[in-house]
Amino acid sequence: MDPWLTSLRTQTPQEGFELAIKMSRMGVKYTQQSDEVRASLREEYVNDYSALTAASHVIAVHFQTVAAANDWWR
Amino acid sequence: MDPWLTSLRTQTPQEGFELAIKMSRMGVKYTQQSDEVRASLREEYVNDYSALTAASHVIAVHFQTVAAANDWWR
Amino acid sequence: MDPWLTSLRTQTPQEGFELAIKMSRMGVKYTQQSDEVRASLREEYVNDYSALTAASHVIAVHFQTVAAANDWWR
Amino acid sequence: MDPWLTSLRTQTPQEGFELAIKMSRMGVKYTQQSDEVRASLREEYVNDYSALTAASHVIAVHFQTVAAANDWWR
Amino acid sequence: MDPWLTSLRTQTPQEGFELAIKMSRMGVKYTQQSDEVRASLREEYVNDYSALTAASHVIAVHFQTVAAANDWWR
Amino acid sequence: MDPWLTSLRTQTPQEGFELAIKMSRMGVKYTQQSDEVRASLREEYVNDYSALTAASHVIAVHFQTVAAANDWWR
Repeated sequence: MDPWLTSLRTQTPQEGFELAIKMSRMGVKYTQQSDEVRASLREEYVNDYSALTAASHVIAVHFQTVAAANDWWR
Repeated sequence: MDPWLTSLRTQTPQEGFELAIKMSRMGVKYTQQSDEVRASLREEYVNDYSALTAASHVIAVHFQTVAAANDWWR
Repeated sequence: MDPWLTSLRTQTPQEGFELAIKMSRMGVKYTQQSDEVRASLREEYVNDYSALTAASHVIAVHFQTVAAANDWWR
Repeated sequence: MDPWLTSLRTQTPQEGFELAIKMSRMGVKYTQQSDEVRASLREEYVNDYSALTAASHVIAVHFQTVAAANDWWR
Repeated sequence: MDPWLTSLRTQTPQEGFELAIKMSRMGVKYTQQSDEVRASLREEYVNDYSALTAASHVIAVHFQTVAAANDWWR
Repeated sequence: MDPWLTSLRTQTPQEGFELAIKMSRMGVKYTQQSDEVRASLREEYVNDYSALTAASHVIAVHFQTVAAANDWWR
């Protein structure tokens, strides 16, 4: 895998949130490496509210980590 | 995405709770960007108690982060 | 929403636990604001052990936050 | 509810684990207060491995809190 | 229940991981105390990838606690 | 089980993320030790978006631990 996570520091909470989204997706990508398969699955889950909530949950867990790494941008 | 998360600080725990709700919803919105689709899914999940509990769970995780960022409003 | 969360401090761990329950329920209420619908869904989920465990899980997450806010009542 | 949680301190990690179990069950009991219904649901879920794992998950979350309250019994 | 958790300290991260596995299983055992029933359920869930991931999740939560108790073996 | 987890320290966040993936998989492997069975189950779950999200969730929990162990690579 090419370098994609060199630091957990971000300028703003929002960038930290977006990094958490990236990390959530990379957790999927490491397991299912085919871009084509992921794109196909994506069409399904973006219309499934349980799946969307589950995705939001993973983002929340990663955001905890990113926020701590940035001392909560205090 | 327009700026929506510039700080994790809030005046009160309740505002922090409401920020956690916002963050939970934004986790969904980044994945499903269509307002129309989200509104349609919403009609279903607000009548599904498993989905409501799952949503409440994501809020709880984000609230942990917001509470820590505010030193628990001590 | 009227004020309902002005502090995370409680006198005892048990009051903190009960606050965590309140927070779990408010996470649902913000999403499904109809008292009637929630009461109707409640009749179902109180007889569904998966749902009861899921509710207990959300309480546990909020209780972590409340306990930290109270320095674990040490 | 009668007093049942006056302190998070325990003598040993194992007592802390057992307190976490108690807390998990109380999370259910506050939602479903009928002893009879809980006993009936219990017969089902103790034979359902998804439910047992979910119960173990809630215990794990509460144990984090209890362990922190006891400074990890160091 | 006989003594099985007298300390959260371990010599190595791997022993800590194995303790987390033990704790996950004990969370199940306290709820379903029959060795026979657990062995029977085990045959099913070891072939069910959702169940295996759920088990791995509980281990991850307990490992957080064990790692903190050991100051992350730094 | 041969030694596989001797330290939680890594050079970079990305290596820490990859260690979290390893830990997630080892949580499964300790429960289902057959390489053949795991490979067979893997074929299924890599095409199931709920399973992929669940796997990503476990990674996120382990990554919290690894990040803390590395003082968030600050």
